[in-house]
Parts: sequence; structure tokens; C-alpha cells
Amino acid sequence: MADDEVADAVPAIGLDIGGTKIVAALVDRDGAILVERRVETPVDGERRTAELIALVDGLCKEHDLHTTTVGVGAAGLVDLDGVVRYAPNLDWRDYPLRRLLESELGLPVRVENDAAAAAWGEYVVGAGRDAAGGALMLTVGTGVGGGLVTEGRLARGAHGLAAEFGHIIIAEGGPRCPCGNRGCLEALSSGTAIGRAAREAVAARTLPEGSVLYDVDDLSGTDVTVAAQAGDAGAHAVLTEAGRWLGVGIASLVNSLDPEVVIVGGGVIDAGALLLEPATEAYHERLVAREHRSVPPVVAASLGDHAGVIGAALLGAGARS
Amino acid sequence: MADDEVADAVPAIGLDIGGTKIVAALVDRDGAILVERRVETPVDGERRTAELIALVDGLCKEHDLHTTTVGVGAAGLVDLDGVVRYAPNLDWRDYPLRRLLESELGLPVRVENDAAAAAWGEYVVGAGRDAAGGALMLTVGTGVGGGLVTEGRLARGAHGLAAEFGHIIIAEGGPRCPCGNRGCLEALSSGTAIGRAAREAVAARTLPEGSVLYDVDDLSGTDVTVAAQAGDAGAHAVLTEAGRWLGVGIASLVNSLDPEVVIVGGGVIDAGALLLEPATEAYHERLVAREHRSVPPVVAASLGDHAGVIGAALLGAGARS
Repeated sequence: MADDEVADAVPAIGLDIGGTKIVAALVDRDGAILVERRVETPVDGERRTAELIALVDGLCKEHDLHTTTVGVGAAGLVDLDGVVRYAPNLDWRDYPLRRLLESELGLPVRVENDAAAAAWGEYVVGAGRDAAGGALMLTVGTGVGGGLVTEGRLARGAHGLAAEFGHIIIAEGGPRCPCGNRGCLEALSSGTAIGRAAREAVAARTLPEGSVLYDVDDLSGTDVTVAAQAGDAGAHAVLTEAGRWLGVGIASLVNSLDPEVVIVGGGVIDAGALLLEPATEAYHERLVAREHRSVPPVVAASLGDHAGVIGAALLGAGARS
Repeated sequence: MADDEVADAVPAIGLDIGGTKIVAALVDRDGAILVERRVETPVDGERRTAELIALVDGLCKEHDLHTTTVGVGAAGLVDLDGVVRYAPNLDWRDYPLRRLLESELGLPVRVENDAAAAAWGEYVVGAGRDAAGGALMLTVGTGVGGGLVTEGRLARGAHGLAAEFGHIIIAEGGPRCPCGNRGCLEALSSGTAIGRAAREAVAARTLPEGSVLYDVDDLSGTDVTVAAQAGDAGAHAVLTEAGRWLGVGIASLVNSLDPEVVIVGGGVIDAGALLLEPATEAYHERLVAREHRSVPPVVAASLGDHAGVIGAALLGAGARS
């Protein structure tokens, strides 16, 4: 059976494996979700794989699919063979996920990093669908993931480990990142970083008097966004600072990679313009030879938290824009 | 006439246009230089173009070439149409170099950034010739240029402006770069940066007593390299620091781009291990999930200052490895 025939004939299955939840979906060739399932991510690696198999089997049975393709986005470093080399929030180490799934399911499987899958989804049917020249995506959530599409292809690097944009170093010697380095983009502009910056500002009492943040225990990034949207000046200042760091990272990436568009997604994007306006300003200030070049716009992702599962399904089906 | 026929039949012409000199060469399909010419770069833009035409005409006449291809590497931002959008050390602004040369020469011409051309030369016949998976190159000279080969192709970005690796930001708020930003790789690890760091250390008297750098007026990066190679501890410390910054930049780039090999060229490479050893150490310390992944090696370029003209000629000929 040829993959192309499968892709043309039937919907594809996508799986998006995060640290807390797994999203499974049946996706048509146009990137529309026909049906979706969400389950908690099993902590145990073998149980996790069994859950993935059960999700695919379930979708196939319910929808009377005798054959299809499976695309997986996994939160971790995934090599060109679909081996999860390392995943900070999952216990997989050098785990041959693609081979195991193919063997159990008897279906063609492709495994990619989750943010790369999301970038592909946004490129094909989301905020990058008019950017034939390529899209760079940052998923800013608890951490920062990345994906890059260039010349109509997902950039994977020599070993499949490209686009770890959360770990570009923009402030050497800066705050500690979960990866062990200091001054990574993720350490300065992520949900985790926003929460930490807010807690530090509260401890140092550098926020304006009367900020509601002084009254919140164990401040999270979400607390900051909610307070900023309600007009709290202290929360606004914390988000502006995180946005400016995001802009420094975007400038560094655009100077390196020259995409047609920069797409920002992930949960932190709920902050909207409070984050993206200072980001865009800081990015424009730092783009090399800005007045002599095309300036890739920074736009919000449009597929929400479906980007990963849609992109994974389309990648698995070999579908291209 | 098909380009491939030309490329197969006759040597190609390469032109490497720097701020101070132009190198022209006749290059065979294997990347060997058959003949080379060097001239000073005319300051005036029109005279510069006339010089390029004269160099090509001269090589064609002397070697009785009735047709060939021309590849150009130019020190500046070059877009996909071969327009020099901006060149910090040349007065070309939005200058349609490719079209002008094609029209005057009646030959197919390709124009790329000079460091990108050098990366292609090193990838095809130099230090990257065994790295089929792709090579990332940094040319560390007065400034820092970059080039990237991925999946057997030169990465150009959506507008041709990719790989300005000298302007990734690794220390936001750090030393001022000629581009106007602060904390770019070029501001921390280039011939210019090494000279400036040495002058600052002399002024602050932070070098070891007895360092010969205290006795040199108007210290340059070359002065530092020469003194370090002669065993001067102060010069050694300055180079080590520049090397460590280079390593921070390499880590950031490998986390983003996952090449098979990192090639470092440019004049500063005369410092050899004095620069590359601290660079490699700092890079290894900062590579994400180093113990779970392939670690792209850092190697010195092997084509010296011929990489650009060879790469340009091979790009112009449409030759691939």
C-alpha cells in the first residue's frame, strides 16, 4: 500500500504527547479535526505507549478505518529515526517510539518533536498558511519550544534535533534554565520565567504599590496574565519585560534564519498584545539592517492547542501545503 | 545552453568581494583553483562593478573561455534576486549586482553573501566534505559572517538573508556591535572585539604584570594573537575570553540548527587552539541534553581565504557535492 493512497483516501491520525496530557485526533487532508480524544499522560513509559496504541486502535475501530497513517508530536528531543532521545518531562530516554508503534499498530508512523509538529500545523493550515517562504514558530508555555519550516519543508537538522529555540542563549550568565544553562530564552520568557520574575519582584518589592501580585501566594505565569488583563500595573510590567526578552530571542532567530513569518503560540499567548507588542518592539530594534530588508511579521498562532495534533497528523500522512 | 552542460564542460569563475580586496579565480568542478587574481576593492560602487567585469573578461580571454558561469560572494546582505540590499563596508544599497553582471557579461551569474559562499566551499571540498548532513560555518575575522548548509542545500531563508550568525544576540545589553545592537556574537568574538577587549584590559590594568600588551599602541586582534602565540599570559587570557564567547554562540546555534559539523574560519582562526579550545569547552557546557545526543564537532576551516571564491564558483556552476 502506498502512503499517498492512504493519505488521499482516509483521514490521518495525530497524537500530541505533552507532559500532562495526550491529544489524539482524526484529521482530514485539509487539516480539519474530525474527532478528538484527550487523556492524562501516563507517568510510566510503557503504560504511556500502551495508551497511545489504545487511542489509535479506538479511533480506527470507531470510524471503521482499516488503514491510515499516524503522526506523533512528542515533547522531547526526537531523532531522525523517531527515537525519543531525551524528554525533560517524560521518562523516555533513547526510546524507539516510532519503531514500537509501527510494530504494534501495523501502520506507518512518523514521530517528531511536538513544537515542530505544531509549526507544521500552523504553516499548512494556520497562521503561516500564506507564508510559502517559510515560518518560524515559538511555542511559549511552561517552557519554550520551536519549529522551523523552510523551503516548504520541516527543518530537522542533521540528527533531527534542530529548532530547540527555547535554548538559544540571549543573556549569558542570566537566570538558570531547567536545561542547566543560564540565560536561555526559556529562562527569560516562558510561563515559568514570568512566574519567577513576578515572585522575585514581589520579594524585592519593586512592583508599584497596590499591585495585586503582592497578595497572591506562589505566583504563576497565569496569575500574572490574569492580573495584567485586569489592569494591574505591576503584572503589566512583568509581562512587558518577558515580552521584551521574547523580542530579543526573535531578533536573534530572524538574524539567523530569515523566515517569512514568526508565529508565536503556546499558553502564554493568552496574554496577547501585552506580550506581543513589547516583543515586536524589541525585535524591530534589534533586527540587523532593518531599513534595508524585508521584516518578517510576528503573528499569534491561530490553531490554539490543536496545532500539534493537526501538524502531527499531516506530517504522518506525508501531506504538504 | 543548459547550465549543467556549461558546468560539466569548462571551469567556473568565482568572485569574492570583500571590503578591502576582490579575489577572482577560475575553479574546476572539483573545487581546485586553476588561476587566481587579487585586486584592491574599488571604493566607488560603479568602479567596483567595472572591476568585476574586467576580471571576468580577463580570465575568459586568457583561458580562451567562450562560455562559463560566474558565482559571486559579496560581503553584505544579498537577497534571492542577487540584489545587494546592504553592505556595511561597501556603498552598495539595494544594488542589483546579479542583473548588472549578467547583462554586461552575457553569462549566468549567481550572487550570494560571502560567508555563505565560503560555507558552501568548505562543505563541498573543505572541512565539511564528509558532513553530508550539513555544515554550519562561522567566519571570524574583522566581523563574524555565517553560512549554513542543510540537507545538501545552502540555507538562504525566505528573502536570502539567513545565516547572519554574527548578529545572534548572546549577551543582551553587552558591548555595542557595529550593527547598532549590543551583545551580538560579533561584538564579543571577532578580530575587532579581541582588539577592543585587549585595549580595555590594558586601560583597566587587569592583565598580568609584564604582559607585552601594555607596550603596544592601538592594539589589534592580530597583535593579541601574535603575543598569545609567543606565550604572553595576558594575550592568552584575552583570547580565551573571546573563545568562550564564540563557544556560547556555537551552543546557541547548534541548539537552533543541529548541523553535522561546525566549521570556524576567518582570519582570527590563526589563533588556532588558543581560540578553539575554550570555544569548544564553553560550547559543550551549554549544548542542550549533551549526554543524550550527537555532539557536532567544531573544526577549523581548511580552505583558508580561498573558501569564498571556491564556494562562489561552485554555486555559480550549480555544482553540488
